[in-house]
Amino acid sequence: MTNHLKSRLSAAAFASAVFAAGAGGTALPSLAAVDCGEAPAAPAHHLLPANADTVHWGYFAKGREPVVAAHSGDFVTIETLTHHANDDAERMVKGDPGAESVFKWEPGDKGVDRRGAGPMDASALGRGAGEGFGVHVLTGPVYVCGAEPGDVLEVKILDLAPRPSANPDYAGKTFGSNAAAWWGFHYNDLIEEPKPREVITIYELDATGGKDWAKAVYSYRWVPQTDPDGVVHEIIDYPGVPVDHSTVTETPALEGIRVPIRPHFGTMGVAPAEADFVDSIPPGYFGGNIDNWRIGKGGTMYYPVAVEGALLSAGDPHAAQGDSELAGTAIETSMTGVVQVILHKKDELAGTPLEELDYPLLETDSEWVVHGFSYANYLDELGDTAQSDIYSKSSIDNAMRDAFRKMRHFLMTTKGLSEDEAISLMSVATDFGVTQVVDGNWGVHGVIEKRVFAD
Amino acid sequence: MTNHLKSRLSAAAFASAVFAAGAGGTALPSLAAVDCGEAPAAPAHHLLPANADTVHWGYFAKGREPVVAAHSGDFVTIETLTHHANDDAERMVKGDPGAESVFKWEPGDKGVDRRGAGPMDASALGRGAGEGFGVHVLTGPVYVCGAEPGDVLEVKILDLAPRPSANPDYAGKTFGSNAAAWWGFHYNDLIEEPKPREVITIYELDATGGKDWAKAVYSYRWVPQTDPDGVVHEIIDYPGVPVDHSTVTETPALEGIRVPIRPHFGTMGVAPAEADFVDSIPPGYFGGNIDNWRIGKGGTMYYPVAVEGALLSAGDPHAAQGDSELAGTAIETSMTGVVQVILHKKDELAGTPLEELDYPLLETDSEWVVHGFSYANYLDELGDTAQSDIYSKSSIDNAMRDAFRKMRHFLMTTKGLSEDEAISLMSVATDFGVTQVVDGNWGVHGVIEKRVFAD
Repeated sequence: MTNHLKSRLSAAAFASAVFAAGAGGTALPSLAAVDCGEAPAAPAHHLLPANADTVHWGYFAKGREPVVAAHSGDFVTIETLTHHANDDAERMVKGDPGAESVFKWEPGDKGVDRRGAGPMDASALGRGAGEGFGVHVLTGPVYVCGAEPGDVLEVKILDLAPRPSANPDYAGKTFGSNAAAWWGFHYNDLIEEPKPREVITIYELDATGGKDWAKAVYSYRWVPQTDPDGVVHEIIDYPGVPVDHSTVTETPALEGIRVPIRPHFGTMGVAPAEADFVDSIPPGYFGGNIDNWRIGKGGTMYYPVAVEGALLSAGDPHAAQGDSELAGTAIETSMTGVVQVILHKKDELAGTPLEELDYPLLETDSEWVVHGFSYANYLDELGDTAQSDIYSKSSIDNAMRDAFRKMRHFLMTTKGLSEDEAISLMSVATDFGVTQVVDGNWGVHGVIEKRVFAD
Repeated sequence: MTNHLKSRLSAAAFASAVFAAGAGGTALPSLAAVDCGEAPAAPAHHLLPANADTVHWGYFAKGREPVVAAHSGDFVTIETLTHHANDDAERMVKGDPGAESVFKWEPGDKGVDRRGAGPMDASALGRGAGEGFGVHVLTGPVYVCGAEPGDVLEVKILDLAPRPSANPDYAGKTFGSNAAAWWGFHYNDLIEEPKPREVITIYELDATGGKDWAKAVYSYRWVPQTDPDGVVHEIIDYPGVPVDHSTVTETPALEGIRVPIRPHFGTMGVAPAEADFVDSIPPGYFGGNIDNWRIGKGGTMYYPVAVEGALLSAGDPHAAQGDSELAGTAIETSMTGVVQVILHKKDELAGTPLEELDYPLLETDSEWVVHGFSYANYLDELGDTAQSDIYSKSSIDNAMRDAFRKMRHFLMTTKGLSEDEAISLMSVATDFGVTQVVDGNWGVHGVIEKRVFAD
């Protein structure tokens, strides 16, 4: 979002727009009504479908009414939808009641009106309600009973499977969209004409899981799209704009190329405390749009809880992504996950591996992964204009610094090493990689193998 | 080397020192004497031991007299020595004739006097001959018969094995040193006292290859060391200074920790054309000190040839390193490699995967890896003061930009994709990682799996 946002909206304008919206006429319902009842004798399994009533689009909000209440130990089957489904509605929306309810858009009538943390009246840029300051369809939030600020929420990802196309023409297949967009790292550094340009590539994967790779179906270059409310989108500046395929040219792409699949949640996290509406794009201490392909089946995330009930949401499902997410998106693909939520109370953290955890930590079968960002907590560090300023402060160098500090903390606190030991081990056995360079608050992850600690 | 060099030596002083040395009284021998003779009917296998006559220390030099001449297809067994062996000479030098000849240092008499690309009279900083502007012991150069600028040199790494300790007290073991040094990313960002500090950790590995992990033996904090010529080294500012172990405190370190071994050449490359003496620390188009742990057994490097004979050298052997080489070094461990050199003539490159190759490219069994740097060719881009300026221009952000461009080039030229295809594939299937943040010209590598192209 960097370039256009910078040139078209001042920091102050964005901040006032966002905060006015948060404080204004669209006040959120109170959480007081959440009734957790007694914890059941055995863990419950909640089913959380994705539809217009169960998703919030483009933002985290500490005041958002929960769609389910879960006790520690409960399981949740959580459907998630890609916000890019309308890049090819025939393959990714048609016939799917949940997706149709979310993506419904008739003149003056959207299934989900607010898309982003911006003003509802689109007074900042005129794109649409919420202004697309934040783009991800997020399912939730899940209220975790008993969760309070200072606790740690553990989320085990037990399964994550592609959502089959509901269009009978494409039975047994799942589709995803990759947008090489204006917020991509490549956008102002192209060599072929026309420059610049945005390109959508539609990928297909095996919905049954029988093949571990995806292939491109076709691609098209974005041309201005007029949404049902008459707003013309010259670029991909608002999520869920239906693409009229009579206006684009579908071109064969990447023939013979197999993309290894890496199903994961691009975005999953708890609600931040610092603002009422938080743009879903920049990740932070609360997790959010980390865009690390390792956050998939078999992975466990640990998040510091910032608000009552934690308010866990997930979305932005990806079938595959490379470290850096170079062009701005992954293979954006609707998927359904099964997670288990486990609450660790703050007064029980001392002496455990989760002591002092103030960042989103990933555990996989074989690795520990810390997540560094240009700013560890940009909402706090950048003040009132954080949500716009972050886009002009993107830096891998800073994210590397943050990842170094977090891995040092992990090794010293969680693994009990001295600083000298931690630093030597980081130099000889920790891999730092570029998580993403497209989400404003750029990311570097640090990975250390568990077998290092086998003794 | 960033901080101290910046504060203690102006760019102009460094440039004049280096170039004076190159042009002055220590003129290098001519290459005219190289006699390749007729190419043999079958590939030859050359044995290249490491000793004071076969290594150059701390620099690449296009005028350096070759120690062996190889035809395309020949094999070379090449011994390489770590420049950190004197961190524990008992374990890494004693009893080893090659290492003893290189590390010999009596008052006024060094086995290898020049250590670095700086002035021989140490008039810049007073550290010693060559000033330690460049630190790696490099074996070679190998003159590749028929190689000319514009060609591509392929180097297959067929084997790479640790060099056993020659001290009978340590039979069957190999040792390495990890220095958390002043040029490390962590150095000005420490939390424990005393700050700052340098720490050496000595690691042990199984010389027989029976174990795939190394363990720490002990560590010590650096204290000022007086070299045999009477120069006091307050910090690790000159390579090969013998550490007097009566002055340091050996402390147990990293008990129970196993570091997976990843044997590789930290430094391997061809001689650059831009300057007579080139500091061995910053990597560039010619390869050099890339510090990518993937450049190990089974790997093949492709280098653009810049000078007649290519002049391939290798050194800086590492038993293990993490992506970023955070604290400044790996497990620096003497090793012996077996390589095959294959010359690709410039007039035969068109239409091949090596067409237009102007960067160091790695091929492994399963991956293709491009190497981006803060500056693709810092020697050319930064002009006469490049060799000092590069240390103040380190940037992961720039290296990511360079890695993106090189991966795009690889996918478009070597794999024949359109730019749109290449960019989508980079976003969904290419991993960018932080190679190193300690070599002045910082690195980001881009990795794509070969199975992507299986069809």
